[in-house]
Amino acid sequence: MVLAYAMNFTRTFIPTLREVPADAVIVSHRLMFRAGMLRKLANGLFAYLPLGLRSFKKVEQIIREEMNATGALEIKPTVIVPGELWKESGRWDAMGASLLRVKNRLDADFVVSPTAEEAFTALVRDELSSYRQLPLTLYQINTKYRDEIRPRYGVMRGREFVMKDAYSYHADDASLDETYQAMGQAYRRIFKRCGLSVIPVKADSGAMGGSGSEEFMVESAVGDNTLLLCKTCEYAANVEKATCKPDFEAHASLEAAKSAGASVPEIEKIDTPAVKTIQELCAFLKTDAKRFIKTLIYKALNVELDLSGAPGGEKLEKRKPGTDAPEVYPEAFFAVAIRGDLDVNEVKLASTLKASEAVLASDADVARFTGAPVGFAGPVGLSAIPVIADTTVTAMTDAVTGALAQDLHYAHVAYGRDFVPWLIADLRTVIAGDRCPQCGGELYEKKGNELGHIFKLGYKYTQSMQVRYLDETGKSRIPTMGCYGVGLDRTLASVIEEHHDENGILWPMTIAPYHVLIIPVKYEGTMKVAADKLAAELEQAGIEVLLDDRPERPGVKFKDGDLIGIPYRVVVGDKNLTLSTPSVEVKRRSEKESRLAPVSKAAEELAALIRAELH
Amino acid sequence: MVLAYAMNFTRTFIPTLREVPADAVIVSHRLMFRAGMLRKLANGLFAYLPLGLRSFKKVEQIIREEMNATGALEIKPTVIVPGELWKESGRWDAMGASLLRVKNRLDADFVVSPTAEEAFTALVRDELSSYRQLPLTLYQINTKYRDEIRPRYGVMRGREFVMKDAYSYHADDASLDETYQAMGQAYRRIFKRCGLSVIPVKADSGAMGGSGSEEFMVESAVGDNTLLLCKTCEYAANVEKATCKPDFEAHASLEAAKSAGASVPEIEKIDTPAVKTIQELCAFLKTDAKRFIKTLIYKALNVELDLSGAPGGEKLEKRKPGTDAPEVYPEAFFAVAIRGDLDVNEVKLASTLKASEAVLASDADVARFTGAPVGFAGPVGLSAIPVIADTTVTAMTDAVTGALAQDLHYAHVAYGRDFVPWLIADLRTVIAGDRCPQCGGELYEKKGNELGHIFKLGYKYTQSMQVRYLDETGKSRIPTMGCYGVGLDRTLASVIEEHHDENGILWPMTIAPYHVLIIPVKYEGTMKVAADKLAAELEQAGIEVLLDDRPERPGVKFKDGDLIGIPYRVVVGDKNLTLSTPSVEVKRRSEKESRLAPVSKAAEELAALIRAELH
Repeated sequence: MVLAYAMNFTRTFIPTLREVPADAVIVSHRLMFRAGMLRKLANGLFAYLPLGLRSFKKVEQIIREEMNATGALEIKPTVIVPGELWKESGRWDAMGASLLRVKNRLDADFVVSPTAEEAFTALVRDELSSYRQLPLTLYQINTKYRDEIRPRYGVMRGREFVMKDAYSYHADDASLDETYQAMGQAYRRIFKRCGLSVIPVKADSGAMGGSGSEEFMVESAVGDNTLLLCKTCEYAANVEKATCKPDFEAHASLEAAKSAGASVPEIEKIDTPAVKTIQELCAFLKTDAKRFIKTLIYKALNVELDLSGAPGGEKLEKRKPGTDAPEVYPEAFFAVAIRGDLDVNEVKLASTLKASEAVLASDADVARFTGAPVGFAGPVGLSAIPVIADTTVTAMTDAVTGALAQDLHYAHVAYGRDFVPWLIADLRTVIAGDRCPQCGGELYEKKGNELGHIFKLGYKYTQSMQVRYLDETGKSRIPTMGCYGVGLDRTLASVIEEHHDENGILWPMTIAPYHVLIIPVKYEGTMKVAADKLAAELEQAGIEVLLDDRPERPGVKFKDGDLIGIPYRVVVGDKNLTLSTPSVEVKRRSEKESRLAPVSKAAEELAALIRAELH
Repeated sequence: MVLAYAMNFTRTFIPTLREVPADAVIVSHRLMFRAGMLRKLANGLFAYLPLGLRSFKKVEQIIREEMNATGALEIKPTVIVPGELWKESGRWDAMGASLLRVKNRLDADFVVSPTAEEAFTALVRDELSSYRQLPLTLYQINTKYRDEIRPRYGVMRGREFVMKDAYSYHADDASLDETYQAMGQAYRRIFKRCGLSVIPVKADSGAMGGSGSEEFMVESAVGDNTLLLCKTCEYAANVEKATCKPDFEAHASLEAAKSAGASVPEIEKIDTPAVKTIQELCAFLKTDAKRFIKTLIYKALNVELDLSGAPGGEKLEKRKPGTDAPEVYPEAFFAVAIRGDLDVNEVKLASTLKASEAVLASDADVARFTGAPVGFAGPVGLSAIPVIADTTVTAMTDAVTGALAQDLHYAHVAYGRDFVPWLIADLRTVIAGDRCPQCGGELYEKKGNELGHIFKLGYKYTQSMQVRYLDETGKSRIPTMGCYGVGLDRTLASVIEEHHDENGILWPMTIAPYHVLIIPVKYEGTMKVAADKLAAELEQAGIEVLLDDRPERPGVKFKDGDLIGIPYRVVVGDKNLTLSTPSVEVKRRSEKESRLAPVSKAAEELAALIRAELH
């Protein structure tokens, strides 16, 4: 990538700041503003200035090179995409308010793309005829928009951003898996080349209908995501997906308890006047939350799971969200039973139900389905809606739970004897201290920001948008699909989060806006001559140079140099130029000490060091 | 710019077509689809496929290099821009329905940028403090949107497109002029490097408040613009701006006529029953359209010209369209008098009035201001609105015109005696056959498409958006401004319009998606070995190669090769490989004859030829 190499500070536009913008709470946001890389146009809308854009383009080019290396092919669809395609796929309805919808002057619907499954699938649909064309992976690096309610942290969570999004199409799962693995490797190389420590984690893939998903996270105190990591092995997962080793007898049951000689009392209804919370109940009954079956009523949207045999299922309406999409229940209610010390993971629940979302039901809905006010739901005798039990509940043989009536609970409830759920699933929210599902080691938590995501989508879009090809035998088939995204703005900001000190940025060579900053103590006389000559020599060697020719005091130039974080600083001063071996002072931004280098060899030496780091 | 060099046809995605899309009426639209460069997502929205994107990026890179060479600095603002900025500048109201407006979830107004005067000026406003920062030229190469009612001709007039738009800020006119001239030179180099013959023409700069404007046009049968060119000299102008040498006695007047001894009769009212058109009137009076003063009533919008002393001016409302913008009359009416054989140029009229637009008034408005039905307007005695006379009228001493009453005209009307206009201006539409204003040569017409436009904006935006800097003396001043745009999609399509034959595209080397197409007669045995080796050697030499490894008949590959138009074609065939000097067949796309080249030297020879053409 050719960027104009040698640039004088006074000929470019790097408006550095001493003050920190009031709304900049994270380091990258502060430093991008202070270093004159970025300015704000409006809440969540930013302009990259020349210095910021140089680094941005280097991230872009690394991503492009790694994508091309996988055989993915770059295309450029539009940013504004017909709403019709989103109606076909069903996402016009399924996506919430974060989708920026536009009507044009002819009253047609459009979408400012947040992702482009529809646009790519529509293109492929029109061109695909034979299995010989598969696999096919296409990508774009293009503007995206997400209408965030509360954009913050600078470009880490802006409204408009640039994303590389790739979409692959395959004749079979083996081919999808091959591309998925290749993308996983490419992503690892991308982040490594950017100097980033990423944590690849297992991620939820439920709501989108996929069958495999990995997120690439960077640790961040203000991260959107909670990650569970194992202290012993490599296990790492988004909390949305994380599982843990059971902390109960996996095969505990009433029969097991009985045959082990335990006394198993009969179920009993007990008065619990004025007892509202689980804590109060535990105190009242002198028991422990682990002996309580907590039961929550959930409303799920766009449920794809078949409910025809479930309690209340025969009354539910169905509809088709897209042209050829499978039928869904737009709205359905469920009771979720879980051990009293645990929380329900709503993403796991939605994934289990193949739903777009699962949210707690309103108090009115709770009363409608349980016949009691909030606080007295329980799985025993509940027949209006399906009961889903977390796996922890299957080991409970002497539990307390709500009795579907005000101020009443059941004691001595046994799973399998007193109630049988419609479905059993892993629904618990895993927390720090739980045990690793792989090795049993202790799990701990980190906050993280997602930079990339790879995803086996399966047939969701190719089916709803009716993509077909003819296989070897001439039979019409639907291809399977993967998608692979990485956010450029976030990646760049994360590089700064990982590489800075109290004085400013410390760019990795690969992403640095310039490789070398030349600071003449004064830009005049022999210092000017030497600085210009050095810049020209470095430029000749393909090295990108910024020459600080401003009429500022050296202290100001050093401070700004530290702030903008160019990897090598060369100070050209009168004193060193008059040594017996005329020299300049070379300092690595990351190191404290500088060293003298003969001016006659400085360019050659630096060029060699920099080239070695770039390759 | 590094593009993956050697690519096999079966590993990329070039879906060539035999059929021409039904809606493709121009060559570039047809060929971009047939060559597999482009596909349609919706009306006016296109996706560049891999082959198209390669050429697109070469256009982009040429533009970037030439911009950087002028000292302009690339930045990247957002595509979606706050509506607030457009309200400040006044364009929120002034722009018509082609501006795509969006409301976000918080009910705030946004604009999908068609140009970015506001965003750039807002950025500069926040950073500008001293004259030392000027001049400053910033640019972006970014997505734009224009909500065309009838998009057509493929990417030549699409809704979403990519534009390079630069904006410059200056302390004085001399500095603006210097940048304006440098941009004019850069644009000439850009189009030359793309292999395009452009016609730089003088353009209108009135409505935008500027003081100099040049458009870069390519000839096109379906062009949006009419150009007037001189057969003798270099004069070229958009019809919106074109002037001509007067075809009347410049200093003719009543006095001159009298002193020349002409008989000048007194004005006389005549009955003209049932005479409606100028033709009918000419026949009725046995005279010629040139002796008629045609008078048209116009409605002008957002008029900046001071009308306080004009007829009816005292009653007009005023308002401020932007924060610090000059006051305008939102709506004002004018009578325009012009020689009967000529047409009024509405762009010249709007420019004269400093109005955003001028349109013919409704019949009701005509009746309201002239007191007569349409067809009887005239400058004599018209006092309700200002009369503006085209310069041709000033030479009319014995003319016919409407008498402001049904079925009545005036004869023997003399300019200056019988009426005095409020304003005299050049308002005629120049046509083929008129005389060049520079040399008097004959003008002729061409249809053209605008690829680029450079423009002295003056103070329009910097004033309304309150940009200030301190000059050498510490005085607060407003900078002056220029803007400079070029459409990338149109430029690319125009290259194809200029470089094609009946079989397909003939790419100039600089824009070609690949430099060399290698076609093995069959991709097997020694032919495969030789083709792969040649591709590798060319790749090594930095040459971009497409190798057609498809299991197709040679005829199919030759046809596709001609269609996609790669400059050099190398055919690797068994027969030539077994000659005493094993050879391949090299053919230039633009030439009929091929020649044999020794396979051992083919790569080296081709690389030298191509490099020479690229530099």
